[in-house]
Amino acid sequence: MSASETEHRMIHLFGGQDSRPHGGKSVLGEKGWRLASMSALGAPVPPGLILPAHYTGEAAKNGGRLPDSVRRALREALSQLEEITGRRFGDESRPLRLSVRSSPPRPVPFSIGTVLNLGVTEKIAQSMEQATKQVTEQATVNDTVNDTGGGAKDSAKDSAKDSAKDSTVGWDAYRRLIEGYGVQVLGLNGGGFEAVWNETMASEGVEGAHELGLEALRSLALGYREVVVAEGETPWPEDPMEQLYETVAAAYGAWNAEEAQNWRIDHGLEHLPGTGLVLQTMAGGTGQGHGVSKHGGSKHGDSKNSGAGRLITRVPATGEKKPHGNFLSHALGPDLSAGIRITGHITEMEQAAPEAYAELLEWGNRLEGHFQDAMDIQFTVENGTLAILSARPSQRTAKASLKIALALVEEEICDTRQGLIRVDPAVIDESMHPILDKAEAGQPIAKGLPASPGSAVGHAIFFAEQAVELAAQGVRTILIRNETTPEDIDGLKVAEGIITAHGGLTSHAAVVARGMGKCCIVGVGAISIDYLVNEMTVGDHQIKRMDWISMDGASGEIFAAELPQIQPTLEGGIATVLGWADAVRRLGVYANADTAEDARHALEQGAGGIGLCRTEHMFFEIDRIPLFRKMILALDQIGRAAALAELLPLQRKDFMDIFRVMEDRPVTIRLLDPPLNEYLPKGIRSQTRMARAMGIPVETIQRRTEALSETNPMMGHRGCRLAITYPEIYNMQVRAIVEAACIVKKEGVQVNPEIMVPLISTSKELSLIRKDIERLVTQVTGELGETIAFRIGTMLETPRAALSARSIARLADFFSFGTNDLTQMSYGFSRDDAGMFLPVYLEKGILDKDPFMEFDQEGTGRLVEMAVKEGREANPDLKLGVCGEHGGDPRSVKFFHQVGLDYVSCSPFRVPVARLAAGQAAVEAQAD
Amino acid sequence: MSASETEHRMIHLFGGQDSRPHGGKSVLGEKGWRLASMSALGAPVPPGLILPAHYTGEAAKNGGRLPDSVRRALREALSQLEEITGRRFGDESRPLRLSVRSSPPRPVPFSIGTVLNLGVTEKIAQSMEQATKQVTEQATVNDTVNDTGGGAKDSAKDSAKDSAKDSTVGWDAYRRLIEGYGVQVLGLNGGGFEAVWNETMASEGVEGAHELGLEALRSLALGYREVVVAEGETPWPEDPMEQLYETVAAAYGAWNAEEAQNWRIDHGLEHLPGTGLVLQTMAGGTGQGHGVSKHGGSKHGDSKNSGAGRLITRVPATGEKKPHGNFLSHALGPDLSAGIRITGHITEMEQAAPEAYAELLEWGNRLEGHFQDAMDIQFTVENGTLAILSARPSQRTAKASLKIALALVEEEICDTRQGLIRVDPAVIDESMHPILDKAEAGQPIAKGLPASPGSAVGHAIFFAEQAVELAAQGVRTILIRNETTPEDIDGLKVAEGIITAHGGLTSHAAVVARGMGKCCIVGVGAISIDYLVNEMTVGDHQIKRMDWISMDGASGEIFAAELPQIQPTLEGGIATVLGWADAVRRLGVYANADTAEDARHALEQGAGGIGLCRTEHMFFEIDRIPLFRKMILALDQIGRAAALAELLPLQRKDFMDIFRVMEDRPVTIRLLDPPLNEYLPKGIRSQTRMARAMGIPVETIQRRTEALSETNPMMGHRGCRLAITYPEIYNMQVRAIVEAACIVKKEGVQVNPEIMVPLISTSKELSLIRKDIERLVTQVTGELGETIAFRIGTMLETPRAALSARSIARLADFFSFGTNDLTQMSYGFSRDDAGMFLPVYLEKGILDKDPFMEFDQEGTGRLVEMAVKEGREANPDLKLGVCGEHGGDPRSVKFFHQVGLDYVSCSPFRVPVARLAAGQAAVEAQAD
Repeated sequence: MSASETEHRMIHLFGGQDSRPHGGKSVLGEKGWRLASMSALGAPVPPGLILPAHYTGEAAKNGGRLPDSVRRALREALSQLEEITGRRFGDESRPLRLSVRSSPPRPVPFSIGTVLNLGVTEKIAQSMEQATKQVTEQATVNDTVNDTGGGAKDSAKDSAKDSAKDSTVGWDAYRRLIEGYGVQVLGLNGGGFEAVWNETMASEGVEGAHELGLEALRSLALGYREVVVAEGETPWPEDPMEQLYETVAAAYGAWNAEEAQNWRIDHGLEHLPGTGLVLQTMAGGTGQGHGVSKHGGSKHGDSKNSGAGRLITRVPATGEKKPHGNFLSHALGPDLSAGIRITGHITEMEQAAPEAYAELLEWGNRLEGHFQDAMDIQFTVENGTLAILSARPSQRTAKASLKIALALVEEEICDTRQGLIRVDPAVIDESMHPILDKAEAGQPIAKGLPASPGSAVGHAIFFAEQAVELAAQGVRTILIRNETTPEDIDGLKVAEGIITAHGGLTSHAAVVARGMGKCCIVGVGAISIDYLVNEMTVGDHQIKRMDWISMDGASGEIFAAELPQIQPTLEGGIATVLGWADAVRRLGVYANADTAEDARHALEQGAGGIGLCRTEHMFFEIDRIPLFRKMILALDQIGRAAALAELLPLQRKDFMDIFRVMEDRPVTIRLLDPPLNEYLPKGIRSQTRMARAMGIPVETIQRRTEALSETNPMMGHRGCRLAITYPEIYNMQVRAIVEAACIVKKEGVQVNPEIMVPLISTSKELSLIRKDIERLVTQVTGELGETIAFRIGTMLETPRAALSARSIARLADFFSFGTNDLTQMSYGFSRDDAGMFLPVYLEKGILDKDPFMEFDQEGTGRLVEMAVKEGREANPDLKLGVCGEHGGDPRSVKFFHQVGLDYVSCSPFRVPVARLAAGQAAVEAQAD
Repeated sequence: MSASETEHRMIHLFGGQDSRPHGGKSVLGEKGWRLASMSALGAPVPPGLILPAHYTGEAAKNGGRLPDSVRRALREALSQLEEITGRRFGDESRPLRLSVRSSPPRPVPFSIGTVLNLGVTEKIAQSMEQATKQVTEQATVNDTVNDTGGGAKDSAKDSAKDSAKDSTVGWDAYRRLIEGYGVQVLGLNGGGFEAVWNETMASEGVEGAHELGLEALRSLALGYREVVVAEGETPWPEDPMEQLYETVAAAYGAWNAEEAQNWRIDHGLEHLPGTGLVLQTMAGGTGQGHGVSKHGGSKHGDSKNSGAGRLITRVPATGEKKPHGNFLSHALGPDLSAGIRITGHITEMEQAAPEAYAELLEWGNRLEGHFQDAMDIQFTVENGTLAILSARPSQRTAKASLKIALALVEEEICDTRQGLIRVDPAVIDESMHPILDKAEAGQPIAKGLPASPGSAVGHAIFFAEQAVELAAQGVRTILIRNETTPEDIDGLKVAEGIITAHGGLTSHAAVVARGMGKCCIVGVGAISIDYLVNEMTVGDHQIKRMDWISMDGASGEIFAAELPQIQPTLEGGIATVLGWADAVRRLGVYANADTAEDARHALEQGAGGIGLCRTEHMFFEIDRIPLFRKMILALDQIGRAAALAELLPLQRKDFMDIFRVMEDRPVTIRLLDPPLNEYLPKGIRSQTRMARAMGIPVETIQRRTEALSETNPMMGHRGCRLAITYPEIYNMQVRAIVEAACIVKKEGVQVNPEIMVPLISTSKELSLIRKDIERLVTQVTGELGETIAFRIGTMLETPRAALSARSIARLADFFSFGTNDLTQMSYGFSRDDAGMFLPVYLEKGILDKDPFMEFDQEGTGRLVEMAVKEGREANPDLKLGVCGEHGGDPRSVKFFHQVGLDYVSCSPFRVPVARLAAGQAAVEAQAD
């Protein structure tokens, strides 16, 4: 056994001799590691023990009971703690009281809550009662200023009562021990305690424990104990050592529970050895607490320079560097967090306990320096002496996170790498979109899926054409539809925001809106639109054409009012932070861009290439769709080829424009993907219009539409399947790409084209199509006398393609994971229909997150990991990227970094956030 | 290096000293192993060499060129062969001629074809010409009676010409060497040879090489050589040793080619070390061949007791034990297989060469005994001396395979385990259904997807109601629809066969027909039905109501005629063979059965339980659907619960009936799976009828139908997602199951219920639903005072569920793989829509097979393998089965055995074939 392994097996004592922590977070857990670190720094931390994580496994091996070896180690460590504190566990005259808290190595659910006052027995409570009756005026702030969690219901006591009241403290602690132990260790549901509580309050005619006298408090505690005896399966263990063992065993039991194991298996955390456990001495001499009134007002006089509070080193809302937090002189910890009474601002402490305040600020600085972050510090002051109970990085708004990161680097508290990972990526979205001022908004009339962030305010309209007309008059509109179609595109462009009753996060409206950076809410099931009379019903609300609508794209809320918008202030620091990210990131960040205009925007946002150029949108353009429809209606290959020949010059120009903008950066062009049926009009009116325009009977169009209609179009005749059945479509597209590349290169512009085949599920598909592409590349470059290297690759978006990565990689220069479709097929969730059940899944906690927003690392992610590993083994030169919506989601980007992709691609608007996340991923990966 | 490893590295010489084969099929390949085995038995096999498979890899490592070590080994082995034969490779006076054939360890594509006559040079041809001019009357049968493959175009020579004609043989061999080498080794496409051939024939005014004189034949050979010089990248290698090296290298090159590697990767055969290679001496003294006329008639006289032929030991069509095959006295091997002339029956050999014939029959018996199978033996007779060129198990019809297997066991040639694996599973289908007699059928009018086997003949009708009416009058009908719906069920029951224009192999019609064992063809795109006038158009054919239709469910062909049907003769041997299978199989075979009637049928077929009882069909029954629709239309949980309460007794009775039939055998009941929308009528007429029946406005129904309609229903709101959103549905079903089980058990009947939750994609879904089920089981068994063990498990049918098997297995008593949906989601192929492209995929060879018929082992199968492995690791007691359509497909069943499932479940009609396949799988797994 190595020295460090030995250390990992030892119980860590802190607060005595200061030594560096034994082991890191994986051994001591996060809380434990931080306490040990602070103690090693010399911070005034109440001493305690940290049980190492691996004890968890030993308990599991021993059938859930604590093994003798652990009991022995615990007893020995406890003796040391008794020596340091001069108190004894279970001793009536100088009792040692402990709080027990789980300290997992990283946040996981299924931990037990804190158990307070371990070590208090009936006899000790009794003896404390006697002791305080003897020593009435000894002001100490004490008790459980750790955290809540113990189920403490009402610990406020009335400072107005005389200090003999302190004789009740032992009983109150005993009661709270019983409640915490009953709920956390014995697994009672707490209903029994509540009944006794209510009964006592009723019979005494009071509203809280602080109003109870000694007798009542004692009988309340003993009543709680009877609940345990009646409901529990074992007798109440009055032996404190036994209680301690059982509490420790319960903490391990929670970690080892079936459901907790399942959760860790599902989240790839099976390797974690277990949870650390912190046993910390509870502050306070005899253990008395001094009550403070529920209605404010602290006890003055002798105990003025005692109290409890919380220092936050930088203002959470703004990030400004100045003391924040609160202080309550003569307070009990739980008062602060339970919000029972209004506490004073932290600066009030300067008056109450100036020296302790100075010391606290000093520690604030030192801990910031040590943990390289803004801190949130819980403390007590006892007769002017500061004790730091815990410290952790402070919570903050996204905006503050930016300001703090910049300041930490500026003040040389941390380097730019650490600064980078302190920035909340949400700050970028916030700085790009106006925010709705909902201060006086009232209730929203409906809520849908937030499909594209920002906010919008305008007049309700129900037809795209009206948006165009009104926009020409300078009128702001919100376009509301059951769903949008490509024909609504002009309306979508000019509307302030878009709302649809149907559709999911990747419906037409959602995708288009995100591409435009426009606010959009979809799947608002409550909406019922009556197009005939130009109005909609939402619950009890009737919204007519031109009524005001405000929408919040971040929350999905819709208001029937003209709300004010707060314009974003461009945060200057963002550019700095993005610079830090670019300097360290390994992932390339490309953009999804279908036009030269998109491409220019992508470059402005810092994209390194185009990861997805969708050629299908090009066919929806007003000058193309008639030709494309002609192709679809053609009866044979010759007819199709003729229509395609007319499309060729238009497609070629699309690509030329894009190549000219992107120059030598990669441009990944996806060949046609959607089913042909999407290009045919559905309603009889549109069909008739089309028939008239083409000079053919409407029946021809109807017949073709019917023949092409599919039960499940998502899994139907689309993607490369079109190329297998109608090779001429891809042939035209490839020719257009190659010609465009050659022409632009002749102009002296470097080009870097990549041709992407969508939706393959077998290597044979790619083999066949690749041969066609290679043949055309050779032929066309030969015709035009140019030499250009074309990468030919594929989208990996069916599970089967991921499972065949080995053979596919041998035929592909690159894989681009299409995580939208991969997610759909992996879950069997249709994006378009998931609105029927996904909200319920999120509500019931079956899903932690919408897998179409944040990539499902645990399930679908295994397919990506396998394909990356096996693909690279088969073809070490394989370039790997992702072009699904997830390419712009910060957490997903981090996963893509971890599995070793080369780039992510997302809409131009998301490029900055992806750059930030990619940089953070690089730093975090090194830290692990 | 161990002794056996050393052997694997040696070239195996056979036909000299007889020794047991070095290594098995993996080293020598199948052909090589069989030749070496026969030689070791003492069979008169022309001597030769077998290059071991691992040389293939050495060539690959050497950049495709033969390494010196291999060349050296080859030269040494060749000297030994020269010693045995008394001939020398490249020698003009006694030339050694070789054929080179790939001998892969198992059938794989991408092998090179045979190259014949290696060792013949221009000088040797010249010298053979001289030799035969000197020795004119020396009759030998020789040449290449191996197999074709060498691209030999016309090797027949005219026996009418005088024997001096034999002087041409050398040139003909040389020409054939050049052609074989050019195509197989140099990769020429053969077009150049064809041009020279055609030119020669035209200028000589003849139709085949046998009509050419010496000069013309010589110039034809030299003309071929010029083609190689002109088209090839290297000069013609006249050195025979060089030719040999290059041929061997080409055989390895074919194995090592990109595409071949991909194929092996995709088929899980990466571990194969390479291909063996057989270099066999070609029969014949000086190498002369005696021509035989294209128009029959063999040369008589001295050479009468020479010839070539093929003995098949049992008749391929019937399995009868008597000599089968053919014999051609004075023949060349290729004549036999090229079908150029009519050959004599094998029994004619008795006259021509009685001793050789007796010896041949004797070897037929010995080889049958050795290989434990009926054999197909190629041989030559030279002056009365028999030479066996090759032998392999004979091909046979399914029916013959049964007869042969029974006979082999009866004759004690093999045991029942070997007998079992000789049976073609197709014999079971054939023995269950009448076969269409297509002798005078003419062309089919259309072809669709064969959805359910057998045949059917009847009058065309287009409405289910008509089928019912006509059946009452004893009229046989074929029901033809665009697609069928649950409301057609009575018509489906009485029709002889079912044809649908739309839909795939798991459309409603297909599933129902298979369940009934009724002939069905779906997805007949050519059909256009006009319901109004009661007729259909198929290409040029107009089919009216009551016109005769015959359909072949095995091929998918449809005929506009009343064809005769051959009634199946129940093969008595099937029961015997199934007995063998049951004795050895490890897999349980269950049936998919939804009713007590189905269950009884399943038991008759030998099912060991019910693997899939679909509860949704129950709701389509005429007495249930109104109640179920009421539930769907209910506005809230209370309304739904009320409707469900009315359904409860009906469901309970369903289950009671099934439990009574199945007794203590497992009955796996799947909770509701399809989307609710399937239960609502779609057309306005049906909707109006329903509205009237329910006394509600039709708009209510339309609104609900619209609200429930989905873009991709297959991936929509169905399966356990319904239980998450409407828990009361499953709760009713579970209550019905538990009540039924308790009541039946009270009657004294043992029950063994398993409750199956469909379509989960996360462990949380199962966790939530399982809790509900367990609660109800406890509650209801308590109410009824019974104790019954319920297994609670899940269908594994989404890729993500398979990827989460570890955590799901901890919550499940069993997994049943739903391979239909798993296949759909893995490929992203909608079963309903795949008809648009799947036929093209099969036609172009992108898929070897329809993955909905035969399970995709290579891709989707990896998900099953992972889930089995990880599921068992997490829960060793996990019961594993499959209940997709693949449970009745023999090859798929073998895969399910290999991956370690416990059972397969299929429609009752397929139970026998599944039992057979399961038995074969068990035997084959042990043999591997």
